[in-house]
Amino acid sequence: MKAAVLYEFDPSLTSPQFVRYEEVPDPKIEKTTDVIVRIGGAGVCRTDLHIVEGIWRSKVDIQLPYIMGHENAGWVEEVGAGVEGFKVGDPVICHPLVTSGHCLACRRGDDMHATDSKFPGINTNGGYAEYLLTGVRSLIKLPGGLTPKDVAPYTDAGLTAYRAAKKASRHLLPGEYAVVIGAGGLGHIGIQVLAALCAAEIIAVDRSDMALNLAKECGAHHLVKGDGTEVEQILALTGGRGAEAVIDFVGEGDAVEKGLAMTRNAGFYYIVGYGGKVEIPTIEMITSEKTIVGNLVGTYPELVELMALADRGLVKLATREYRLEQANEALHDLHYGKVKGRAVLIP
Amino acid sequence: MKAAVLYEFDPSLTSPQFVRYEEVPDPKIEKTTDVIVRIGGAGVCRTDLHIVEGIWRSKVDIQLPYIMGHENAGWVEEVGAGVEGFKVGDPVICHPLVTSGHCLACRRGDDMHATDSKFPGINTNGGYAEYLLTGVRSLIKLPGGLTPKDVAPYTDAGLTAYRAAKKASRHLLPGEYAVVIGAGGLGHIGIQVLAALCAAEIIAVDRSDMALNLAKECGAHHLVKGDGTEVEQILALTGGRGAEAVIDFVGEGDAVEKGLAMTRNAGFYYIVGYGGKVEIPTIEMITSEKTIVGNLVGTYPELVELMALADRGLVKLATREYRLEQANEALHDLHYGKVKGRAVLIP
Amino acid sequence: MKAAVLYEFDPSLTSPQFVRYEEVPDPKIEKTTDVIVRIGGAGVCRTDLHIVEGIWRSKVDIQLPYIMGHENAGWVEEVGAGVEGFKVGDPVICHPLVTSGHCLACRRGDDMHATDSKFPGINTNGGYAEYLLTGVRSLIKLPGGLTPKDVAPYTDAGLTAYRAAKKASRHLLPGEYAVVIGAGGLGHIGIQVLAALCAAEIIAVDRSDMALNLAKECGAHHLVKGDGTEVEQILALTGGRGAEAVIDFVGEGDAVEKGLAMTRNAGFYYIVGYGGKVEIPTIEMITSEKTIVGNLVGTYPELVELMALADRGLVKLATREYRLEQANEALHDLHYGKVKGRAVLIP
Amino acid sequence: MKAAVLYEFDPSLTSPQFVRYEEVPDPKIEKTTDVIVRIGGAGVCRTDLHIVEGIWRSKVDIQLPYIMGHENAGWVEEVGAGVEGFKVGDPVICHPLVTSGHCLACRRGDDMHATDSKFPGINTNGGYAEYLLTGVRSLIKLPGGLTPKDVAPYTDAGLTAYRAAKKASRHLLPGEYAVVIGAGGLGHIGIQVLAALCAAEIIAVDRSDMALNLAKECGAHHLVKGDGTEVEQILALTGGRGAEAVIDFVGEGDAVEKGLAMTRNAGFYYIVGYGGKVEIPTIEMITSEKTIVGNLVGTYPELVELMALADRGLVKLATREYRLEQANEALHDLHYGKVKGRAVLIP
Repeated sequence: MKAAVLYEFDPSLTSPQFVRYEEVPDPKIEKTTDVIVRIGGAGVCRTDLHIVEGIWRSKVDIQLPYIMGHENAGWVEEVGAGVEGFKVGDPVICHPLVTSGHCLACRRGDDMHATDSKFPGINTNGGYAEYLLTGVRSLIKLPGGLTPKDVAPYTDAGLTAYRAAKKASRHLLPGEYAVVIGAGGLGHIGIQVLAALCAAEIIAVDRSDMALNLAKECGAHHLVKGDGTEVEQILALTGGRGAEAVIDFVGEGDAVEKGLAMTRNAGFYYIVGYGGKVEIPTIEMITSEKTIVGNLVGTYPELVELMALADRGLVKLATREYRLEQANEALHDLHYGKVKGRAVLIP
Repeated sequence: MKAAVLYEFDPSLTSPQFVRYEEVPDPKIEKTTDVIVRIGGAGVCRTDLHIVEGIWRSKVDIQLPYIMGHENAGWVEEVGAGVEGFKVGDPVICHPLVTSGHCLACRRGDDMHATDSKFPGINTNGGYAEYLLTGVRSLIKLPGGLTPKDVAPYTDAGLTAYRAAKKASRHLLPGEYAVVIGAGGLGHIGIQVLAALCAAEIIAVDRSDMALNLAKECGAHHLVKGDGTEVEQILALTGGRGAEAVIDFVGEGDAVEKGLAMTRNAGFYYIVGYGGKVEIPTIEMITSEKTIVGNLVGTYPELVELMALADRGLVKLATREYRLEQANEALHDLHYGKVKGRAVLIP
Repeated sequence: MKAAVLYEFDPSLTSPQFVRYEEVPDPKIEKTTDVIVRIGGAGVCRTDLHIVEGIWRSKVDIQLPYIMGHENAGWVEEVGAGVEGFKVGDPVICHPLVTSGHCLACRRGDDMHATDSKFPGINTNGGYAEYLLTGVRSLIKLPGGLTPKDVAPYTDAGLTAYRAAKKASRHLLPGEYAVVIGAGGLGHIGIQVLAALCAAEIIAVDRSDMALNLAKECGAHHLVKGDGTEVEQILALTGGRGAEAVIDFVGEGDAVEKGLAMTRNAGFYYIVGYGGKVEIPTIEMITSEKTIVGNLVGTYPELVELMALADRGLVKLATREYRLEQANEALHDLHYGKVKGRAVLIP
Repeated sequence: MKAAVLYEFDPSLTSPQFVRYEEVPDPKIEKTTDVIVRIGGAGVCRTDLHIVEGIWRSKVDIQLPYIMGHENAGWVEEVGAGVEGFKVGDPVICHPLVTSGHCLACRRGDDMHATDSKFPGINTNGGYAEYLLTGVRSLIKLPGGLTPKDVAPYTDAGLTAYRAAKKASRHLLPGEYAVVIGAGGLGHIGIQVLAALCAAEIIAVDRSDMALNLAKECGAHHLVKGDGTEVEQILALTGGRGAEAVIDFVGEGDAVEKGLAMTRNAGFYYIVGYGGKVEIPTIEMITSEKTIVGNLVGTYPELVELMALADRGLVKLATREYRLEQANEALHDLHYGKVKGRAVLIP
């Protein structure tokens, strides 16, 4: 089959070719629960750029060369002997983690914290290819109105935004405020999820007017320009108290410090973006009784929930399509800020 | 009346006299909900030393001179015109915050986050005195078996430990682990509360053998010497995964970094002690999906719950008594590590 | 002042005059926390008809004659010596319960279960009058956009619907279903609250087409005619499983049996309406693992939350105004089904 | 292999032989996830008597003849091609439900409500035999200190008591009360679980002094004789208010009515026992705001949690052993109240 393969890291992201588009061996069913999916869409994500940079090497075991692509959807092509409930041709979206389902975390529904799992596109071959080897437990049948190439980016970008926004929605009450820092690829989904799941007033913060306009379309009630006075603006909007929930989709630069500062006492600061550092004196944490919450993608049931929202039109996602052989172009466009919405590789 | 009054900060804690024992005017009922309590016991707390040092000046508005003492219990001496449910002579313990009860936080039961409150002994006159002016909403009638001087330290030290341990107990399941860092004045209460409220295995960490022995008496199942290898020891005890809850009663030095490192992925790190700093890259927070929780004293209902535990003997507290005129001796003994248990000033 | 006074019960609701419009003594401030409110609107509720029938005699201590009216809003007229935060002229809505705030339930934010409380219009003089004696803890200042006569029915009818719908919204996830039985005065508010607080699909059940049309305007996604086949229709809509939440605003006749039957295994059946009986074999409860939840008005903070929804236009309420002297006409119109929306007495 | 087989229902439980001990074909691995367990212990449960009576016919599809026995533990004998993590000889306890793990309930950790499952000993062949066919997802490896014949009854009786007591423990606070109605086979485990998981005061209610003595050994703080005045006694113990949680292990006769009456307003009544009926006017549910909760066995993770408690000696279970060929004797002894603790069939 054809695939886009990463052969070496490029810390400065300056090479003209990040991946090689080439012929590779087809994946094969090995375990009874294996499934091969014919890719209909593979999302191109900022994390892919971070992988090319080599940033993830310290976090996960990456062996080059391998096929990138962790946001996958398509059709069932072949199933292992123990697979039930799916047949060839079924349209599916792939939860990013492939788990065996036997550990206690999985049995509690918390598959993101499985003791044993694979993350195609991160630590094993992914979906920048014609076919993907995955496991039956990662598959969700698509509701009738959705097609693989339109939903692929939900598996990681969408799911990550969903999980953080859902956590916040569980404690946000009418009359309270939720701040979304960064109204980009993830943030604009987070805003839609908040608007669907709770009645808090949503405040979007971004440096870009275009992003703020998108935030407004997505349901933000207040727009705050990231001009250095974000904290003051949020305090002014919230009666001087700050927001009960702050979801930080940036997670670097001064976003973290500002994010914590605009969180109300007894409130929650959710970290989704990364690159920066949390730095706060313990006495501040105590006198404010704030909570800082790390967020990692989401569970399989949460992806099912997100598909239900997408199917009803409560969450929408703008995509821009590239052919698989244009993987480098898509990655470069993303790197240089030329992609509006999410880039998706199609066969 | 007689009182021990703080006239000036002493950042190095070197002066022979931190407070002056002297005659001051009696407090007077001003508002319809005011109550004057005749002090039976006033706890002497490490926070008092931090107040003398001047550390709290940046957090709360402290006007010198004033009477310290934020852990108070005694008997009702006089009540305002609008006070119901208490009569002169009733033995009471005083919740540390005096609130009006009208803000939304109070109406939700979260009085620690009242928009308008006083904290006697912190930002207004406290209980290092014969009489204390407080409000009816701070009073809890003592159960029959308890006396003011024995329970006074529960109001702050005990309540703080209770609230953090209670939060942890709400998610700790059988088969899971709770680490208590620092088995001192607060920590040994935290261990007892955990043992009463959940069935997690409790691991106490301390540098002192004496503290570890106390931890064992209090119900800790595993003792870990704080010799620099705490993290490795905890990982060994927990099958390499870390603990589902870590309650850090130290909050300074390397406790914070180590505390976060011994927290399991998806687990909770509770900060109670202070003086240090939380420093963690956002990518660590995300890949581990840990939660960092600040903890501030506790609510009025939580002090009622703690009194129920104390009344049934499920939580015990060792105290050492000093006369009110010995306030300086008590503070110095505390500063020089000579107090076993909690020091309490009695009339 | 003028008031509409109930002198005797009328079990058959056949007398031409349920209450007498007459001159009565003005209420007087007695306690330091008392407040007198000049009534701007007093809602007329089906519970008022039940009071006239005498149904509530077995539940609460009602001494005739007394002034009915438990849904009150107006302006502060006079305050007791201990009242802070309100001044004469402030527009307010009155939470239905007057509590002292000292019991543990109140301190936990659960004022509906105060050990000591008064319920004006139920067990003490209410708001079918020019002035109402209440307590400061019942008052909520109205947001700028709202007027007393428009919001009065929220205090009981609205708050009851809000509390039940909020409870359901806390566990309803995208892809799940909420059934609302009875899309009348309370039900149509419940639908709006569900739509604001969660993303479940809402199914309205009613015998009346007019009510179903209202349900649709309020945000119901599916309409089910109450023609005897409701259970079958719900099962068909929900893939044969039933709804994760059923909120029963009828609570009599076959609504209860049907409501339980359309609740999914492991789901929740919320009772709001009354008059009927829950009857279910214990083996049914066990094999289905259903939960049956009783619902009683709501807390003070919940009324604040509902006002926030109303202020933002997320919940709307149709009212029909009558002058105070027309109280009998309003009650008769309600009894004979002639009121669309909620009747409100105005000065 | 040898097995004890049920050939016909006996509604009056009068026949001398409920089951036939006979030679039957060995079970065979059919699916890739199948496992055959060599039985080390099979609990004999009151539900087995109800099955013989035919009571469960209306709830589940039972085809006679079949092998009873739904409380099973033993050693892995043979595994299907897709089984990972278990090897022949591993000591295991079997969760009562065999699920595929693919439905949304399973993915959320709520396997008790799987859309597709088998319940060996209830609707397919069980463990009154030398070997049991089950699935890998039902298996839990036994901690070192536990043996199959000692833990078998935990799978149903123990797990059911655990789940209900755990639910209650999540909301029970110090100073609150939990009533356990029926201190028999399940109840005495429920008491131990409550004592391990929370600090509520535990009140045991039973007609039998022997059961009350057992309750005391298990950790009950108050004993109430079931002499017709139970409700009055509970109200007297709880300051007239009733208990925050009532767990009813009887569920028939007057237990249900009394159980609801001794539940505090805003409290929870948990039904575990069955045979009777819940009957309560909707107005009672509303004015009391009580919650009625059905309880069905427990999840796989909950059985893991219970094993952790058993392994640490926090929950103990008295068993009486019978050889497999004595199945009828065990069932008759149970029927005639001659078994102290739980009967277990051993090879």
